[in-house]
Amino acid sequence: MRRSQLFVKTRRQTPADEEARNARLLIRAGFIHKEMAGVYSYLPPGKMVLDNIKQIIREEMNAIGGNEVLMSTLQNKELWEATNRWDDKEVDNWFKSRLVSGTEVGIGFTHEEPLTNALKHFVSSYKDLPVYPYQIQTKFRNELRAKSGLLRGREFLMKDLYSYSRSQQEHDEFYEKIAGAYFKVFSRLGFSESITFRTFASGGVFSQFSDEFQVLSHIGEDTIYVDKAKKIAVNKEVYSDEVQAKLGLNKSDLSEEQAVEVGNIFPLGSKYSDALGLYFTDENGHKQSIIMGCYGIGISRLMGLLAEHFADDKGLVWPVSIAPFKVYLIRLGSSPTVVEAADSAYEQLTRAGVGVIYDDRDASAGEMFADADLMGIPVRVVISEKTLISASAELKLRTSKEPQIVPAQALAQTLEKQLQN
Amino acid sequence: MRRSQLFVKTRRQTPADEEARNARLLIRAGFIHKEMAGVYSYLPPGKMVLDNIKQIIREEMNAIGGNEVLMSTLQNKELWEATNRWDDKEVDNWFKSRLVSGTEVGIGFTHEEPLTNALKHFVSSYKDLPVYPYQIQTKFRNELRAKSGLLRGREFLMKDLYSYSRSQQEHDEFYEKIAGAYFKVFSRLGFSESITFRTFASGGVFSQFSDEFQVLSHIGEDTIYVDKAKKIAVNKEVYSDEVQAKLGLNKSDLSEEQAVEVGNIFPLGSKYSDALGLYFTDENGHKQSIIMGCYGIGISRLMGLLAEHFADDKGLVWPVSIAPFKVYLIRLGSSPTVVEAADSAYEQLTRAGVGVIYDDRDASAGEMFADADLMGIPVRVVISEKTLISASAELKLRTSKEPQIVPAQALAQTLEKQLQN
Repeated sequence: MRRSQLFVKTRRQTPADEEARNARLLIRAGFIHKEMAGVYSYLPPGKMVLDNIKQIIREEMNAIGGNEVLMSTLQNKELWEATNRWDDKEVDNWFKSRLVSGTEVGIGFTHEEPLTNALKHFVSSYKDLPVYPYQIQTKFRNELRAKSGLLRGREFLMKDLYSYSRSQQEHDEFYEKIAGAYFKVFSRLGFSESITFRTFASGGVFSQFSDEFQVLSHIGEDTIYVDKAKKIAVNKEVYSDEVQAKLGLNKSDLSEEQAVEVGNIFPLGSKYSDALGLYFTDENGHKQSIIMGCYGIGISRLMGLLAEHFADDKGLVWPVSIAPFKVYLIRLGSSPTVVEAADSAYEQLTRAGVGVIYDDRDASAGEMFADADLMGIPVRVVISEKTLISASAELKLRTSKEPQIVPAQALAQTLEKQLQN
Repeated sequence: MRRSQLFVKTRRQTPADEEARNARLLIRAGFIHKEMAGVYSYLPPGKMVLDNIKQIIREEMNAIGGNEVLMSTLQNKELWEATNRWDDKEVDNWFKSRLVSGTEVGIGFTHEEPLTNALKHFVSSYKDLPVYPYQIQTKFRNELRAKSGLLRGREFLMKDLYSYSRSQQEHDEFYEKIAGAYFKVFSRLGFSESITFRTFASGGVFSQFSDEFQVLSHIGEDTIYVDKAKKIAVNKEVYSDEVQAKLGLNKSDLSEEQAVEVGNIFPLGSKYSDALGLYFTDENGHKQSIIMGCYGIGISRLMGLLAEHFADDKGLVWPVSIAPFKVYLIRLGSSPTVVEAADSAYEQLTRAGVGVIYDDRDASAGEMFADADLMGIPVRVVISEKTLISASAELKLRTSKEPQIVPAQALAQTLEKQLQN
């Protein structure tokens, strides 16, 4: 895409009405716009980052048998009364509204109830199970305070998968399978297994623990205890001598770390399926309860974390896998030779399928370099009178200090290699 | 995808709580689930149809310079007060809610206000214009009655593009350009230019007319007058002797037709930009108003229309471009030879990039044939003991009565050709 075709601009000043560093950076870089505390709109490069994160998650969910759906936002009160989650005393972060007729409706914050209800049309026999519907959808939570930018929104994008299994064993097997898929997702997003920990966290009614996926980060808001040799982590919130003994941990092997929760998986037992009347008939004709689990990944939260975690003093630093563009192409100078060479490089890269943003404005070198850095594009390529003397282009990774000189002819090939590493 | 991996099933009976034919068919085929009147969830094949429609629209909007964004659903009251569209007396189909603090928020039904406000960060000079942001997003309208299935929802998916131009001439040029893009979209979706008419409709404050895109259809709810030779159409609602004279029409050349509105484009003048304080400075340093237009396509409405318009007495009939799967592969019989041949055909087609649903259940032939028809998959392929005698497969288009016999080896090639026509 040509920069002149992109309507957003970067800003040098930090927005006055924003406290969170992730949102400040994303606003300055033209990726998001703040509508109110905890509510953001996504501008073109921000939308591209979201789409790239979504695609990675979608691929990994499909690979383990996920079926993508899109549930409604408006919620039927009756379904939530059946599970005792309608009353504001039970769930304190509903947004609610009313139909013209006066009937109350909810604005969805999660989807166990409607999905379980819909499945009553499709699940009755053991032959119909297990099933793994998931969606990527905007959720709404009426948070009292929303000061962490994209890390805790009132309106946010989430992937939520729900599993429906015939037995505890079948449930447990899938639970481990999706845990594996989660590590793949986070690793593809730039959080390797060496800094991502499946972490024992508070469980609720059906099991002692749930599992959080925590990424070690200097911006971490959670504290976890990690046994790095055993790859076991425990959220400080649930840590006790009893838990230590149960998990076979040694206090001296644990390090205390700051971390950010990027996903969670949760056993639900048959609470929702029983309450909504979703059962199955087994091989012997007996009616049985269905064991559920829910599995969330906060997509807009991940975007905020990725922005803040990798940023440096010049701005954003996107991992290649989710960067809105892989290459920021700068044309220095406006002589016909330079314009022609830059145009041709742009076409060459676009044809090769390398996502490129081409700064075709007549801006100063400093302005363009600063934009490439602030927007966090993985590779900067400069074409100028000087590089053209040797029929070359200057290439610099966002994460390295030194530029390299590469033959202009081999630009696409060189970039493809660089971007794979 | 294997049918056994898809959690939805078809239903023989018509759902009792649904009046609209489009929704009845889509519910029976397992594409959607009704949450309440005018509110539907999209099950896997329905989600695929939506995605296919979205992708076509996205490509055509990008081709004319559109920049995709994703605006928030929660709306800041102040922006809508500035344009006098907050009060329920002015706009009677808002859904509204409240933050915990008590502050009222809107649930977005359109996005002129927040988008125009966001652009104040990016547009100040003539050099920053024109811009064409668009989004594909769920909208909410508190309709008093919602009885037309996906044709008129309380929650629905829409593409809305907004143009911001420096002059009436620049606006008019883009207005014609997007009208052309709309014809391309509808044609790719299965509504050719011979049945799609740009139709004069009521304009509002800024111009006498707006433009509706109407598709001639036996399920049409609108009445339009069409001069087929001149390719001019007028909505009955605005037709008068004066309009007839102004457009140079002859009553005798007009035919009265039933049609369904699939899109509209609307001149907005500078009402919203002026009210929200978005101006630009021209080449001479003078402050000028910005001319806006808005351009909508109802995506879930189109899905409903496509379902109902093309359906026959056996069920849905999707155009190839948006069908959830292109091929419904049926394995008749469970002998190792048949299973092996069908598995191999499934792999061959999947490798060739042909979207295929493989009915690997041990269901009756009648059940599988009925499902292929009800779900509206463009091509049905059968592999059985009988076809294997001649090393072939039986192929039948959803829209034709007679099957063809094709060599099993050439299946992928034959299908690629068939699907292009």
